[in-house]
Amino acid sequence: MAGNSFGTIFRVSTFGESHGKAIGGVIDGCPSGIELNLTEIQSDLDRRKPGQSAIVTQRKEPDEVEFFSGIFEGKTTGTPIGFAIHNTNQKSQDYGHIKDSYRPSHADYVYDQKYGFRDYRGGGRSSARETASRVVAGAIAKQFLKNVTIQAYVSQVGDMRLNKGYKELDLSLTESNAVRCPDPEVALKMEEYIKSIKKEGDTIGGVITCVAKNVPIGLGEPVFDKLHAELGKAMLSINAVKGFEYGSGFEGVKMKGSDHNDQFNSDGSTKTNFSGGIQGGISNGMDIYFNVAFKPVATVIQGYETIDKEGNKVQAQGKGRHDPCVVPRAVPIVEAMTALVLADYALINRTIKL
Amino acid sequence: MAGNSFGTIFRVSTFGESHGKAIGGVIDGCPSGIELNLTEIQSDLDRRKPGQSAIVTQRKEPDEVEFFSGIFEGKTTGTPIGFAIHNTNQKSQDYGHIKDSYRPSHADYVYDQKYGFRDYRGGGRSSARETASRVVAGAIAKQFLKNVTIQAYVSQVGDMRLNKGYKELDLSLTESNAVRCPDPEVALKMEEYIKSIKKEGDTIGGVITCVAKNVPIGLGEPVFDKLHAELGKAMLSINAVKGFEYGSGFEGVKMKGSDHNDQFNSDGSTKTNFSGGIQGGISNGMDIYFNVAFKPVATVIQGYETIDKEGNKVQAQGKGRHDPCVVPRAVPIVEAMTALVLADYALINRTIKL
Amino acid sequence: MAGNSFGTIFRVSTFGESHGKAIGGVIDGCPSGIELNLTEIQSDLDRRKPGQSAIVTQRKEPDEVEFFSGIFEGKTTGTPIGFAIHNTNQKSQDYGHIKDSYRPSHADYVYDQKYGFRDYRGGGRSSARETASRVVAGAIAKQFLKNVTIQAYVSQVGDMRLNKGYKELDLSLTESNAVRCPDPEVALKMEEYIKSIKKEGDTIGGVITCVAKNVPIGLGEPVFDKLHAELGKAMLSINAVKGFEYGSGFEGVKMKGSDHNDQFNSDGSTKTNFSGGIQGGISNGMDIYFNVAFKPVATVIQGYETIDKEGNKVQAQGKGRHDPCVVPRAVPIVEAMTALVLADYALINRTIKL
Amino acid sequence: MAGNSFGTIFRVSTFGESHGKAIGGVIDGCPSGIELNLTEIQSDLDRRKPGQSAIVTQRKEPDEVEFFSGIFEGKTTGTPIGFAIHNTNQKSQDYGHIKDSYRPSHADYVYDQKYGFRDYRGGGRSSARETASRVVAGAIAKQFLKNVTIQAYVSQVGDMRLNKGYKELDLSLTESNAVRCPDPEVALKMEEYIKSIKKEGDTIGGVITCVAKNVPIGLGEPVFDKLHAELGKAMLSINAVKGFEYGSGFEGVKMKGSDHNDQFNSDGSTKTNFSGGIQGGISNGMDIYFNVAFKPVATVIQGYETIDKEGNKVQAQGKGRHDPCVVPRAVPIVEAMTALVLADYALINRTIKL
Repeated sequence: MAGNSFGTIFRVSTFGESHGKAIGGVIDGCPSGIELNLTEIQSDLDRRKPGQSAIVTQRKEPDEVEFFSGIFEGKTTGTPIGFAIHNTNQKSQDYGHIKDSYRPSHADYVYDQKYGFRDYRGGGRSSARETASRVVAGAIAKQFLKNVTIQAYVSQVGDMRLNKGYKELDLSLTESNAVRCPDPEVALKMEEYIKSIKKEGDTIGGVITCVAKNVPIGLGEPVFDKLHAELGKAMLSINAVKGFEYGSGFEGVKMKGSDHNDQFNSDGSTKTNFSGGIQGGISNGMDIYFNVAFKPVATVIQGYETIDKEGNKVQAQGKGRHDPCVVPRAVPIVEAMTALVLADYALINRTIKL
Repeated sequence: MAGNSFGTIFRVSTFGESHGKAIGGVIDGCPSGIELNLTEIQSDLDRRKPGQSAIVTQRKEPDEVEFFSGIFEGKTTGTPIGFAIHNTNQKSQDYGHIKDSYRPSHADYVYDQKYGFRDYRGGGRSSARETASRVVAGAIAKQFLKNVTIQAYVSQVGDMRLNKGYKELDLSLTESNAVRCPDPEVALKMEEYIKSIKKEGDTIGGVITCVAKNVPIGLGEPVFDKLHAELGKAMLSINAVKGFEYGSGFEGVKMKGSDHNDQFNSDGSTKTNFSGGIQGGISNGMDIYFNVAFKPVATVIQGYETIDKEGNKVQAQGKGRHDPCVVPRAVPIVEAMTALVLADYALINRTIKL
Repeated sequence: MAGNSFGTIFRVSTFGESHGKAIGGVIDGCPSGIELNLTEIQSDLDRRKPGQSAIVTQRKEPDEVEFFSGIFEGKTTGTPIGFAIHNTNQKSQDYGHIKDSYRPSHADYVYDQKYGFRDYRGGGRSSARETASRVVAGAIAKQFLKNVTIQAYVSQVGDMRLNKGYKELDLSLTESNAVRCPDPEVALKMEEYIKSIKKEGDTIGGVITCVAKNVPIGLGEPVFDKLHAELGKAMLSINAVKGFEYGSGFEGVKMKGSDHNDQFNSDGSTKTNFSGGIQGGISNGMDIYFNVAFKPVATVIQGYETIDKEGNKVQAQGKGRHDPCVVPRAVPIVEAMTALVLADYALINRTIKL
Repeated sequence: MAGNSFGTIFRVSTFGESHGKAIGGVIDGCPSGIELNLTEIQSDLDRRKPGQSAIVTQRKEPDEVEFFSGIFEGKTTGTPIGFAIHNTNQKSQDYGHIKDSYRPSHADYVYDQKYGFRDYRGGGRSSARETASRVVAGAIAKQFLKNVTIQAYVSQVGDMRLNKGYKELDLSLTESNAVRCPDPEVALKMEEYIKSIKKEGDTIGGVITCVAKNVPIGLGEPVFDKLHAELGKAMLSINAVKGFEYGSGFEGVKMKGSDHNDQFNSDGSTKTNFSGGIQGGISNGMDIYFNVAFKPVATVIQGYETIDKEGNKVQAQGKGRHDPCVVPRAVPIVEAMTALVLADYALINRTIKL
């Protein structure tokens, strides 16, 4: 309701500000009996954490998760899983320079307008730091969905676009480079480009593509809760996301129906997959794939003019250690949100037949 | 939960199949005291209904709404508004040809897999006929949001794209032509193109752009229920939608942060609006604008090969009176879903301060 | 949210005022594949309807349900079931006498205060007529729960109390008399008593006891959504209900733990059942039983002093054809709400294990 | 959904087992701008905590709450309030004796049946220790509802019943004795009685009465979410509760309508208050009062026969430090749940008019 929970049965509620004591959450509705691999959870957190390479923010946060409940003798118990990630690097003094002014294209201004005041220590609740909690919940959802493979990767940085579909790529190479692009040659160019952007004190946008394989047939609820509608909401809820398309997406509008229709094979699979694994909002067993567009990060290390609370013009400058491009660190977040949607819809789907 | 409700406070639950007795719904949480203009509601229904021009399906359905409750002496009472649109043109005999086979890129196959059987009379619940109920609810939401202007229009058909932003267009011209494109010259070309597609027995996709003006500052809930995330879900839940982008969208990924950031004027408005009226998931008072991609309609009036329930190959052919391009009739649906999101979020926003 | 929906998975949303065109609802989340017996649904409606005996209101309403959707070839399809019961006996002119005054212990005053105005034609939305929609939904829930037996009966009228537990009674006799008390001798006395109350132009309260047998073990969610908590809410949501107790109830507070504890048999059943079939909020396979207290109906056919909208004292008098005692007609409502809770919790319980 | 959240707008989700690392929760939807008095929060926790007097369990748990988020410079920010109460006294070795057997009238057996296994360290999630999280959330809700007074007290222990209504009592005396009964004389007798029960190694039930004054008119949603229905659910969700009645309650069924109806004064208040401050499910501005029945605690320090997982009969004995009577410590829990309902409904009520 107030926007800090996601999912209906498999449901995570998160809390925490960038500069508070801790972030964390409660995962409710996780089925009992899942043998949890805690190393894999931490591993996804490490893929998201700052300081992991030269092209991401150099802040140091260990991002270690502490579980409070819901796990007993290595298995989920069916009761809520409470957890926290303690903030060890709060340094709220870094943010004195933004206390009285609004950073352009940040949430500073709207939070103040909405709530009557704001937590001016960094992004507060609007900081992408919150997504670490999603990664924890998503990593558990992945373990519930053990037969499903969810793989995201960077397919575009600025106007450098990977001109291959996911089937032409070896997705096992995604983690082999700092950009998380499975084409090593393109990855190298992207990395150089991000470094040059960083040197300018500027930022650049990008696109993440995600593929989910072996999704069971039948996930997705008709009408308002179509599977791709919930995936779209999940992705658009990630900080800095500006667009979502699945299957043929925006390019598909140019096609004719006779070309776009996916003809059936005898086993119910389809010869093409412009549908992106979803028909009528329901998974059809084919690969689900989609693109997520991220804008350039708003914090630039350049001087700019802005306004203070009274509307006076003030000069300001970005400080601190920010990401020149958000997509490399957002890959595990996209995967986590995908896993949360699929886990929730897999559970909902247990209830629809006699 | 089962996917037939939308919204949390201002909430519509719809029912009905394309070939059942009636479609309709219940609108709960509509505030009391709204003086309803029933003519405006019917007018939006008429914009969606079949048979309104040469480039849409020639089926005849009057689509008259009957209200059962929730309105007294011309005003909403605060109690649920029940309504139905009776199906006068059921002709389920038209669909004998699809009873035993699955139409490609339709929901036939997945419904059968999910529910164990299906209502084979046309699309059943997966038919876009359901969206008439959304238009009713959306038309009421519009009347609640009386200071907000919501205008959608067709900005692309196939690869014919309107090369002007919404600010360069006179949106009052949208309803002046059958395509619902506010540029009369382009509209004419699009109309000719759709006619040629229809003549081929084929279909084509398109894009609808929507603009909401005078949206109050502060709508949107942080984290999972960001305003654009809910708008995205709303749009993606419409039949045939493949993509959603707002503000700078997919093009924005190519920009640098220093160019993309929207600098403030003294009054809190911004000089540019790449943010699309939403920052951190919360409306900032600038125009909200977004694009919605629609695939080509799956029903083509051409022979094709498909499979039956046993997986045998069968020859089939589209029959009936279908839309060669869905976007002209989808314009009021996009507006309705936009209104539903904004009405709901306006009510939620009443609860967030002491 | 606005209070007109019940259940999370198996969810009914109702609409309609006592003097509007129709009442009805949407049942969402009803599993596909249930062979519906429509006669049984109408039969439960007939048990609730006015005019069925000398001790209930003599209004005439046929209360026939019309289904719009969600049923195909005799089975539920998994899509929402829309339905309406048309009001054939609106006679809103009967209520001119209450238009400008507030009836004591009715909802007139609070509706006016809450919504800014009210539908003064009878009870409007606060009328118990709404419960007919619950009976429809509950009758479908019963058919989903085919192995569960739900039997309610009148156990008290005024201070005439049935001094036998449900195990000592032949519940098949409940429908053999107008009171719906399974002890024919006591039923006769209760009937006479209600007739005498009616003659006085007065009303009297009562208690309904309900027993659910063969409820599977495991229904009920820990902590806030305990099975008895949801049953309690369900019952308290019925018009005129003032109290709920299950198992040992209010009498149980006088017992010592050593007497109250239900000792196990080897098969997991218990020797006694003070727990009322629910332990820790979860069904344990024993009979679930509970009592529901109904106040005397507020409409009395006697003169009384009350106030109008301006706070002036006015003389008023009950008119129309009202129930002298609500419990005989409330028996199927109690059963319906019980079925709705059990159906919903049975579906939720499918999601809790790996 | 999985039962660990309460409320729709003002919503708390709790986590934690009796013998895990911590219990705690997330409060979402708490409005921004509330100046929090942390001492009052801790004070309510202290009223609930073990070891506070001779008639409650002698376990030692400090029950100190740690807030992680949602509070900045002493005020709520409108973002979720995450908190934990660390378990300092886990002693799970105390529970080896119940690992393989099921305690009668506890949740052991049903948890095992429902989830496939159980956390056998004490009550796990079914322990009343969870209610400490409710007290934290309720204490914040109380501060939001600053004009409303919520006072609960013990009105019955075993068959010792306070024969005075709340208006005849000085509720400021409630905290003056260990039982929390506002009549000092009766309190003394109750205390002696509980001590004698404790000496027997047995337990006894009780009743808590709660009164809420100055509740604004208009809280409560029609039909399913009547104010008393939600209060009833809230109370019935508390461990060991067997019954709920409000206003005239179960006694009211014996009254005639002409006596039971609350006649109006000119200002809209009523001369009597059998309605218990709620009419048609909506608060009418009069005092809200209700009774909550608690069964005797199931853990008795006496030998008993029970079964193990295989259904074999085994001898067992209650150990540890348990409450002979739960009501003295449950008083702040009843108040907390009342505050949560009223806070939530006060926020919902902001959305119902134009």
